[in-house]
Amino acid sequence: MGVTIAIDCMGGDHGPVVTVPAALAFLRRHRDAKVILVGLEEAIRPLLVSTASEFGERIRVRHATEVVAMDDPPAIAMRTKKDSSMRVVMDLVKAGEANAAVSAGNTGALMAISRFVLKTLPGIDRPAIATVLPSMHGHTYVLDLGANVDCTAEHLLQFGVMGAMLVAAIEHKERPTVGLLNIGEEVIKGNDVVKEAGELLRNSGLNFQGNVEGNDIYEGTVDVVVCDGFVGNVALKTSEGLAQMIGAFLKQEFKRSLLTKLMAVVALPVLKRFKQRVDHRLYNGAPLLGLRGVVLKSHGSADAVAFENALGRAAEAASNRLIERITERMASMNEVNA
Amino acid sequence: MGVTIAIDCMGGDHGPVVTVPAALAFLRRHRDAKVILVGLEEAIRPLLVSTASEFGERIRVRHATEVVAMDDPPAIAMRTKKDSSMRVVMDLVKAGEANAAVSAGNTGALMAISRFVLKTLPGIDRPAIATVLPSMHGHTYVLDLGANVDCTAEHLLQFGVMGAMLVAAIEHKERPTVGLLNIGEEVIKGNDVVKEAGELLRNSGLNFQGNVEGNDIYEGTVDVVVCDGFVGNVALKTSEGLAQMIGAFLKQEFKRSLLTKLMAVVALPVLKRFKQRVDHRLYNGAPLLGLRGVVLKSHGSADAVAFENALGRAAEAASNRLIERITERMASMNEVNA
Repeated sequence: MGVTIAIDCMGGDHGPVVTVPAALAFLRRHRDAKVILVGLEEAIRPLLVSTASEFGERIRVRHATEVVAMDDPPAIAMRTKKDSSMRVVMDLVKAGEANAAVSAGNTGALMAISRFVLKTLPGIDRPAIATVLPSMHGHTYVLDLGANVDCTAEHLLQFGVMGAMLVAAIEHKERPTVGLLNIGEEVIKGNDVVKEAGELLRNSGLNFQGNVEGNDIYEGTVDVVVCDGFVGNVALKTSEGLAQMIGAFLKQEFKRSLLTKLMAVVALPVLKRFKQRVDHRLYNGAPLLGLRGVVLKSHGSADAVAFENALGRAAEAASNRLIERITERMASMNEVNA
Repeated sequence: MGVTIAIDCMGGDHGPVVTVPAALAFLRRHRDAKVILVGLEEAIRPLLVSTASEFGERIRVRHATEVVAMDDPPAIAMRTKKDSSMRVVMDLVKAGEANAAVSAGNTGALMAISRFVLKTLPGIDRPAIATVLPSMHGHTYVLDLGANVDCTAEHLLQFGVMGAMLVAAIEHKERPTVGLLNIGEEVIKGNDVVKEAGELLRNSGLNFQGNVEGNDIYEGTVDVVVCDGFVGNVALKTSEGLAQMIGAFLKQEFKRSLLTKLMAVVALPVLKRFKQRVDHRLYNGAPLLGLRGVVLKSHGSADAVAFENALGRAAEAASNRLIERITERMASMNEVNA
């Protein structure tokens, strides 16, 4: 039996013109999956006209009268917009009508609404946001990238468990390696919280490899890199800035003269392949972990290719028992400690 | 009158074979500068034979019997190796015989020894390490990159003052812009320490631009980015890892087939220019700030070009009154608060 994904069609910079075509492409690629398209019916329906017969019951449209804006404060979005597309996708997951929710909307609102509607899993204090980044040998999952600042050692331990279970579910690696982001490999490095988290992770039963450093994210030293939301956010944003600068410099150098422009034409196929390899659209879809349901956040500026990748990732997580894996793992850890 | 730089010739992965030629190149470029070459005389002298008459009194060799190893624990290096080249360069600055000290040795030992010998400036609790990174519009100074974990808001304020004075001295910008590294631009973002540091910086009289994010480092939004040593270390190491991965991917793509190898040959001049632009050797020489003397840390793996850049940066900082600028600024802030 395939999974059903509830899609917030109104979220993101582009709304239905991106999310609906992405949903159709997703359905073509995943023959046993279903989608529920949530949002303003009058904005969604016209985009389905030409494919009405192709998918039959695999597409449902669920009208939602409100839209969470990108700049709505999370508390306002949660309290006043009870029929927003973002809220309805969460209600559908909660009711068991959908196996996962995907939205490209306002991150803060998504976090607040998903937490309010779905609640956290037993033993999880705060949900976390994980992302996947390319590495020399594949890719690396990093969490938290949410707003979890001032984390305790226990929070970092929980992030480790959630990250490992995510990789187990999505990548089919049963014993993914976990590293703790620090400023040196030695056990004595870092602040007190990180040192204590290292202790907890060492005794967690996870495949913990000790401290890792920033460069290990891209070297692919471990499958999962654990850090607090502040550090994770800085690492991610710094990477985005550097990648943009390198891209801009490369472009400038090739545009410098007629001769270099000709060189660029010659080198184009190689530059294209290179670009594809680090294409951030491949890595779209950040799971909100620790909730009683699968929720994925797509980048707000995602195009249809990127949004479809987020839908695929949601389907993978839901069909591979992500929530059950985290729940079981947390329960077994608590048994050991009890 | 030119500056005198005390050089720890023994530090770094390569020692005198890199540091001595770099010193000679530096003297050729800075006609009024002098150097004191510190280390094992028998290792240094042979490298000076061919240039003995060229520089006359502009070169002095100061024998030091001991060498701090890259893996010496800082406390051991400080207490037991009292005649190490690293210690002697600091003694020379302390005694006023040199205006700045440069070493490519063990960072922890350098920090401990410089702090012990030179002491911190009035109002500065902890020295910080600053680095300079390329940006879209020039370059950005980031501090702290030392081991200052668990910083208070006051520490971050001090880093802001030191960073601004560094840019004023080295870049000749009298009112450099300062940003506080955070996870969003809004004042309410971040943890308590960062929020309080924002308050202090807003009232500091510095040209403070508010919160910046990781990507702003490479976008060049501000001249100085302030953060604690943990976050700064992660940002720097993550950048190094990403740059290496991008370089490796680019190489792999151009090496894929005979055709792509030919493309690489055609594109080589452009790729070379690009590489020069992000060449980390240009950015070598991280000042240890907040001490009663100019101290620069060169990367351990620096080659002669990179080490010469560190020497040039030290000369610039010393001749442009870096220490006096920090002292005066801290004093004026304390007057306002008194």
